Amino acid sequence: MPYKLWYWPSIQGRGEFVRLALEGAEIAYEDCARSVGEEGLLADLNDRTGRTPFAPPYLELDGLVIAQVANILMYLGERHGLAPSNMADRLWLNQLQLTIADLVAEVHNVHHPVAMMDYYDDQKPEAARAAKQFREARMPKYLGHFENAAQANTGDWLIDHKWSYADTSLFQVIEGLRYMFPKRMKTLEPDYPNLIRIHDQVAELPGIKAYLKSDRRLAFNTDGIFRAYAELDAA
Amino acid sequence: MPYKLWYWPSIQGRGEFVRLALEGAEIAYEDCARSVGEEGLLADLNDRTGRTPFAPPYLELDGLVIAQVANILMYLGERHGLAPSNMADRLWLNQLQLTIADLVAEVHNVHHPVAMMDYYDDQKPEAARAAKQFREARMPKYLGHFENAAQANTGDWLIDHKWSYADTSLFQVIEGLRYMFPKRMKTLEPDYPNLIRIHDQVAELPGIKAYLKSDRRLAFNTDGIFRAYAELDAA
Repeated sequence: MPYKLWYWPSIQGRGEFVRLALEGAEIAYEDCARSVGEEGLLADLNDRTGRTPFAPPYLELDGLVIAQVANILMYLGERHGLAPSNMADRLWLNQLQLTIADLVAEVHNVHHPVAMMDYYDDQKPEAARAAKQFREARMPKYLGHFENAAQANTGDWLIDHKWSYADTSLFQVIEGLRYMFPKRMKTLEPDYPNLIRIHDQVAELPGIKAYLKSDRRLAFNTDGIFRAYAELDAA
Repeated sequence: MPYKLWYWPSIQGRGEFVRLALEGAEIAYEDCARSVGEEGLLADLNDRTGRTPFAPPYLELDGLVIAQVANILMYLGERHGLAPSNMADRLWLNQLQLTIADLVAEVHNVHHPVAMMDYYDDQKPEAARAAKQFREARMPKYLGHFENAAQANTGDWLIDHKWSYADTSLFQVIEGLRYMFPKRMKTLEPDYPNLIRIHDQVAELPGIKAYLKSDRRLAFNTDGIFRAYAELDAA
């Protein structure tokens, strides 16, 4: 039986990090809310009892329900060989994924700084201020960190000579930042050759290549985590 | 050789989740920056090469350096029996800890909504707005989730009949929220009897009891994650 993935059906969002790992490894899964819709997702989430997810995405197999992106990826990594098996490497990989999760939370905070449950239109001046510091201070700090991580490995990927879920996650970070901050990324990208190389290698993995051309890959839009608002970007 | 913990020496902050697990299990560690200061911590962090932490806290033992709170706790949990050993339980525990990490990030965002690297005084109106939504919508959502998690177990703790690192982390969440939002917590706490019970049980663990009375436990203050600003609290 294939995995059941539960996530919002109209955005890439946090679910995309899970979709990319599954697609890259060509693991069968059903993206459930693509057929039952957002209402079906909410009904599924609200009907759960016991060990419940706090929020989507969550992954289900044979009664086991796993939530939190880094937790789902750790599980997939161990079970399907998308992660190295020795302890030091596993911890390093999880550490990188958790730092990516921190970046993703900060990206969301850029367009929703003061009220995560209100609209962007209700917090535009605050978002402009948050975006400035994110572009100028946080983006170089995060991207520089991941560039150093890539350089710390002698192989082609973040760890060793085989792609792992943190490589597909970094691909998504670059894609998302290019969509949200095209001017800023044009300025910054030359400083991060190893990151861009990993991004390009991920795009060429057979499973990812097929996925990106399929209708399973949703387009970026202004309902997701990465949002293109021209007024928040600058070189 | 004891563990070396590296974290800001004048705040509880994110490091406190690691300190509490170590203290609860009575594991020997050196809180390095308490002797070498903030400058010593920054020097240590900046001198590192290879697999570097993005930020404190990080834990060091025999050349292995582990960063990200949930990652450190997972390691300590596996190595020192502060976590169950079967896969479903380990994933559930990590999931709870990651949800606590999300809560902690939102708490920080309350007093630093638009510019994490500026002062609170430079963003007080924005913080007031962020605090309102946090108190009214997010606090009940998170605390209700953890209450359900506690109820989902038939034993005395979050998992089974033995405390784990998520129990000590929940203790810290309750402590921090009481310090930052005393009025709001007075309103909400009666709804979460199991959370408060776990909080009280953690406080009675011999290692924690000794720690809380020692000068190793720093007081809460307005430089940390949980900050008591009266204007951000309301019943």
